[in-house]
Order: sequence, then structure tokens, then C-alpha cells
Amino acid sequence: MTGNSTMTLNRTHDAARKSFVATANEQDCDFPLQNLPLGVFQGERSGHARCGIRIGDQILDLPVADEAGLLGRLPEAARQALRAPSLMDFVALGSRVASELRAVVFDLLVSDQPEPSKVGGCLVAAGDVEMLLPLQPRNFTDFLTSRFHKLRLSANGAIDPNFRSLPLAYHSRASSVRVSGTEVRRPHVQRADKDGVDFGPSREVDFELELGAFIGSGNPLGQPIPVGRAAEQVFGYCLLNDWSIRDIQRWESLPLGPFLAKSLMTSISPWIVSREALLPFRTSVLPKPADEAPLLPYLVSSEDQSSGSIDLRFEVWLRSARERSVGGKGTRITITNFKHMSWTFAQMIAHHASNGCNLLSGDLLGSGTISGPDADSRACMAEITERGEVPVSLGSGEERRWLEDGDEVTFTARASKEGFASIGFGECSGVVAPAVPWPLA
Amino acid sequence: MTGNSTMTLNRTHDAARKSFVATANEQDCDFPLQNLPLGVFQGERSGHARCGIRIGDQILDLPVADEAGLLGRLPEAARQALRAPSLMDFVALGSRVASELRAVVFDLLVSDQPEPSKVGGCLVAAGDVEMLLPLQPRNFTDFLTSRFHKLRLSANGAIDPNFRSLPLAYHSRASSVRVSGTEVRRPHVQRADKDGVDFGPSREVDFELELGAFIGSGNPLGQPIPVGRAAEQVFGYCLLNDWSIRDIQRWESLPLGPFLAKSLMTSISPWIVSREALLPFRTSVLPKPADEAPLLPYLVSSEDQSSGSIDLRFEVWLRSARERSVGGKGTRITITNFKHMSWTFAQMIAHHASNGCNLLSGDLLGSGTISGPDADSRACMAEITERGEVPVSLGSGEERRWLEDGDEVTFTARASKEGFASIGFGECSGVVAPAVPWPLA
Repeated sequence: MTGNSTMTLNRTHDAARKSFVATANEQDCDFPLQNLPLGVFQGERSGHARCGIRIGDQILDLPVADEAGLLGRLPEAARQALRAPSLMDFVALGSRVASELRAVVFDLLVSDQPEPSKVGGCLVAAGDVEMLLPLQPRNFTDFLTSRFHKLRLSANGAIDPNFRSLPLAYHSRASSVRVSGTEVRRPHVQRADKDGVDFGPSREVDFELELGAFIGSGNPLGQPIPVGRAAEQVFGYCLLNDWSIRDIQRWESLPLGPFLAKSLMTSISPWIVSREALLPFRTSVLPKPADEAPLLPYLVSSEDQSSGSIDLRFEVWLRSARERSVGGKGTRITITNFKHMSWTFAQMIAHHASNGCNLLSGDLLGSGTISGPDADSRACMAEITERGEVPVSLGSGEERRWLEDGDEVTFTARASKEGFASIGFGECSGVVAPAVPWPLA
Repeated sequence: MTGNSTMTLNRTHDAARKSFVATANEQDCDFPLQNLPLGVFQGERSGHARCGIRIGDQILDLPVADEAGLLGRLPEAARQALRAPSLMDFVALGSRVASELRAVVFDLLVSDQPEPSKVGGCLVAAGDVEMLLPLQPRNFTDFLTSRFHKLRLSANGAIDPNFRSLPLAYHSRASSVRVSGTEVRRPHVQRADKDGVDFGPSREVDFELELGAFIGSGNPLGQPIPVGRAAEQVFGYCLLNDWSIRDIQRWESLPLGPFLAKSLMTSISPWIVSREALLPFRTSVLPKPADEAPLLPYLVSSEDQSSGSIDLRFEVWLRSARERSVGGKGTRITITNFKHMSWTFAQMIAHHASNGCNLLSGDLLGSGTISGPDADSRACMAEITERGEVPVSLGSGEERRWLEDGDEVTFTARASKEGFASIGFGECSGVVAPAVPWPLA
């Protein structure tokens, strides 16, 4: 394991520093000099898939920068990993090496750097390339850590006892994780109602707003991760849409949990925002899963309790086919914050590995739906429309109980704090496509 | 997709043919000429991991056989795949190519082949090598398809309605799949009883006897697999021990299903028995999941209904540390048969992909616990001991309610039928190791 538990604020967090890439310095830019997220892109000029770092409206092409001799301060293993067509090899090096890369690239892109034209030759316009999946995770585990989400969707209106003492989770489907922009096809599903059981295109397609975390170096089978060293296992974060099919979820989930309700597809944003970039926005965990009872020691470290959560604001936008056809911007249907979650990623990781389960480099963890206490902060349609009972109105005058074909769902997130540059995630979006014809050819 | 829905009996099923490897012709051998399972082995002489085919007490070293010019009848892609240190590349070629390889190797190993000494030079003694995981599956899905298992462990003594209309399943953990012989460490788990919630070494370590199936070529995301073409997606089978931790399973499973109860480790046997080798043992599906109601059309094909199950007999042996120390053979605690399962692998695959979920080459499916109607055919400790209430007696005079440290669990399976050579699987075994010290270093 790569140790990095003492990651602290440093010059890469200094809001006074600007980039020579002018767009990075604009007030509402997601990608200032203090962010520097990693991704994988492919463009006509660049040819095959390659690793890059986002700055303003530009991408630093990392293999090209290395060829130009700009990454020489990095260990050879890191430079080699960055020449791969996926971030998997680099993520496996852990968050300490990611921090080294971030420092090197900060110095390359800062406004007073001596050779801006040399670095500028390694930049490509983000608008000219296609973003790919940063890596194909080998395992995807999805948690349920918002007590507000749990309460609103609970059958009996109460929090189950196990939610108070552990971060609930299930293994989800790794093979169908796709990058933002991929359309999600309405699935045929089996469902039951008073008239019996049938099979057809789902009538209850939903989204779930989540924060994803990528595992860095991982742990060997049989060797749990102490909670005090679990945070350092987070390589970085992404936006995650855990598309959810409510009609089959209701029917299939007892006793083995959600299966086809989730495996159709999961969307993630293309940029991995590092743990380091979000350090200024750490906050204490609120609300506790159980105020009345102490947590078991294997889930408690003092550092995590005081700063294991993140003050990170999310929005969800819904845009119908009609709105898209006239260039409308759609309707904001959710404003919420990660600080409403009851469990931290350190606790999720420590619990996940507590039985000796091995987490692999690049494994993806989903936080669970980021719902908060207010009506505005409900983060899936099942909550917003009270399971389809109360339609939500769009700006176009249309109404929605569930997602319809042609609807586009877009997530954004931004961490902001007085005295620091704001850190954004870009977008995670997807359009619902019509079901395939059935029976199959 | 590689089409092979019309796989039929051929000369490789002819019981009259014998091998020049004498041990393959013995009555009780798992690996006659008509079996020819694939695996990956490593030995002092052979060096790195390599693909092989089992015959009697020998292994045909496939890269060596290819170098000797013995595999020239195969397509170049197949020969190249067999030079890899894992079967992943070969499995991706699908079951039609596996059938070609089987025919070629049958002719190499048959007793009247013209150059037995040349082929003999490519054999290594199975006893001299270590068997490795045939491939590391990228996804592992575990089903629940025995109504007898479901009934015995049901809270209310009844079959849930959804079991009658779909093969129940959950995503399980792919990273912790290990080969037979790997010890399984007793995990620390969270559990609850009348005194509250605590965390410590599990008191309820269990096994589950299952049949595993490896996916061959797979399907693209968004393209379901018709049930009539689902059987051909099975590349081959293995024994599978779905180690299960009942105390945390009871506590964690609502509402998201089993998680840490299963992810600690899953053991599989090293030899992949091809679908073709088991063709003579196909049988109709009994008992139906629901006699009273027809199945939905997406789960029904006439061929699958008449021959989608397998007459395959299983045994489970339990051997305590005391028995092992004196060379005892242990106690047979289960005799059961795959024909007791209510759903076929074709149905499991068609259901799995019905929402468009993409199955990848080498993905592992578990059948669920293979419990039958009789007391002898209960296929996990929770059933055998009625959840720890009624201890089972071992031949040594010891008793067990759950597995104890040092206990070894071994599965075997054999398909037998008048007029055909018996097909065996070898063994899938594992010893329970003591929990790690806690708190962690």
C-alpha cells in the first residue's frame, strides 16, 4: 500500500496562483489550476486513446508532454503508466504518485512558468476531442449512505437498524460502467402488479445522483484495511449516475438485493478529481447515522470523524427531447450536498475490506444517492415524485413521473469555499433511448 | 457471438474409445478420453503458468504440444490464445473453438494414434504441478435456483412469488475468486443479537455447494441474448464453493442483499469441463419452479425445457483438523444432483442479459446451492444443521454446527450414464484458517 495519510494543503491549493491558460482563471470554470483532474481522451489529431489533465477549456496531452521532456521530475514508473491508453496503470500507483504528478503539472501550467509556449504545444482543445472511460473498473460496489434517501424510500418510514451501524452496500455490475454521453437504453424487464407478472419495456426508469470513488493501490486478499488508513485508498472522485429501474427493483430484490434494476448501465463523468484537490473542502460527517449509539471501533478514526466528509454541492438537470430540440437548457430538479451523507468513504472502504475482501486498483465505489433533508435535495425521481405519485413540472410545461424516452439527465458538482479556487467536476449526462424491439431477432 | 446451438454427440463421446494414457481408462477416473477439461498449471519444469488438458493422471502441456506441431489443425487464433498464461483469451473464442480443440486432442490421446511417444513427450504428471486459477473472472454472478434450498432457508417456510417467475440472482465479488486449495480465512464481521451489535470473528462460517459456468464469447451492452441461443454461451463448468458467513448475512442483507457474507472468498475447481463433454447427461428440468403457472416466453425454449439440465451427482466431504492429522478421509455430509435445480443455465443467462447487461468472456455464473428434496441432499451447513440447531456428527465422533478452524470442505462431481464414459470434475477443496488478530497493525 502507498502511504499518504498525512496529505495536507500545499502550494497547489493556493488560490492566488493563476494559469497562463486564460479560461482556467474565469470565475465559473470547473477546471482552475488548483483542480487538474485526470482523464482519457481521443481526438482526430491525437489518434489513439491517451491520458490527459484538464485545465480550463484545454487538455494537457500527457504522453506528448513527456516526450517534450516536461515530466522528467516524475518516477519512470509513473511516466510509463501515463503512456497507456487508460488510467488503470497510473491509478495502481496510488494517491501519493498522483500528488507528485499534480505538483509537476501545476508548475507547468502556472502563469509565471518560464516556457509557456513549450507547454502550450502540448495542449489540445477539450472541444476537439472525445472523452473516454478513464478506466474500466474491475469491480463496482454501490453503497447506501444517505439517511434521507433511506427514509423517503423505506417501506415503513423508518431507518433499518443495520443502517445505523454499518454502511449498507451491494456488489453492482462492473461491465456496464460507461462514460458520460453514452445513451442508456430503456430495458425490457419482468415486473408484477395486481394483474400478474409480465415482461416489457420498463415504465419506471430512474436516475440516482452519486459520487464515485476510485480505489488506488488496493489491499491483498485476507488483509483488512484499518479505518485510519482507508482514506488514502481513494485515488479520486467522479460523478456517477446509478440508473435504476424501479419496477423490476421492487419485484426482484427480495432476498438477494437489486440486480437487473442496476446492471443495465452506470454512467460516470470523464474527469477524475483527485482527493488532494478536494482537501480544502473537507468537513465533519453530518448527520451521524445514529446519534444515540456509538459506532463500532473498526469504523472510527478521529481524523475521519472530524474531516471525512466533503462540502460538495450537486445539481441535477432534466431536459426533455422537446427542450433539446429547441435548444432549451432544461429544468434543475435537484440541489444537494455530499455533506448530508451519514458515512464517509473511509468508513465504506474499511467496512468493505473488514472481512478480508481484496479491493483492486481502479475499483469503483458509489456513495449511494446523495439526498439531503430538504425537498429540493431529493436526488432521484422515486423521491422527487414520491414513487411516481406526484409529477414534477418541467420548465417546458411538460410533467414527469419517471424518465421518458429522449430525456437527458445531467449532473454537475462544485466545491466552493472562501479563500479557495472552486473545484468542479464537469458533467455526467445521458439520454434515455427507446427499448429494443422484442422478441429478439 | 459464436454460434453453436446445434452441438450434438459425436465421436468424442464414444465410450468404446480408450486412451494410451492407461490411468484415463480406469473405471473410477474423473478424466477419461471423453472428458478433456482445460486448466492452467505451473510446475518446476514447465516454468511459468501455462494451459493444459487433463487426461488420467497426466496433463497435456498445450504450448509444448503446439511447438511439437500437434495442434496444426486449429485456427491460428486458437493456438495463440493457448500460449497465454490464462484461459481468458481462449474462452473468448467461444465453445465452437473449444469443440475443435477437444476433437484434435481426442485424436492425439486416443489409444490407436500413430505417434504415442511424440504426444507422450508433451505430457506432465498432474501430481508434479500446481494448479492455478484457470482465469480471473471479471464479473461473478451468483444465482439461487434450488427450490429446496430456498424452502429450507425461507423465513416463512414458503417460496417467494418471484422465485416462481425468474431465476433469482445477485452480483457477487469477482476479485476474491480463488482456485481450489486456497485456505479461506475466518473473517471478522459485524453481527447483531439480543445483546446488541458487535464485531469479531464470525461464529457461523458455512459452505455452499454450487456448479459454476464460464461465459464464452458474451454479448455487447444493450443486446439481450435470446433464450434459444443462451446455452451456447456456456463455455464450460467448474465446481464452486460459495463460502458464506451466516451471522453477518442475517444482519446486513436487508434491503441490498448479501455483501460481506460472500465477498471474503469463492473457491473454484481448477478444471473447466466443457459443455460438450456433458452433452450425454442432459436431462429435462425438474422440478419446475412453478407447476401452476406458465413461464414468461423470454425464458422458454423447447430445447432448453427438454434438455437444459444435467444429471450430475455431487458429494460434499468434511474433514476436521483432527481427522486430517491422522490421515482420515473425513465424512460425506451431502449427496445431491444438479437435476434438482428449478432453472437452467440458459434461463439464467437469458434473464441476466434481458435488460441489455453485457456478459463478458470468462464471466463466472454460480448456480446457487444444489440442494435436493432429501435430507442427504442438503448442500450447506445452514440446511444440514437447521441453522446451527441440530449438530451433524462426523466419523471421528466430533460434532459440527458450523465450520471450525482447520475444517476442510471438499466437493466432487460425476456424471454417469449407461453406455457412456463417466465425466468427473476432480476436487474443489479449502481449509478454514483462523481469523487474523484484531485490532489491525
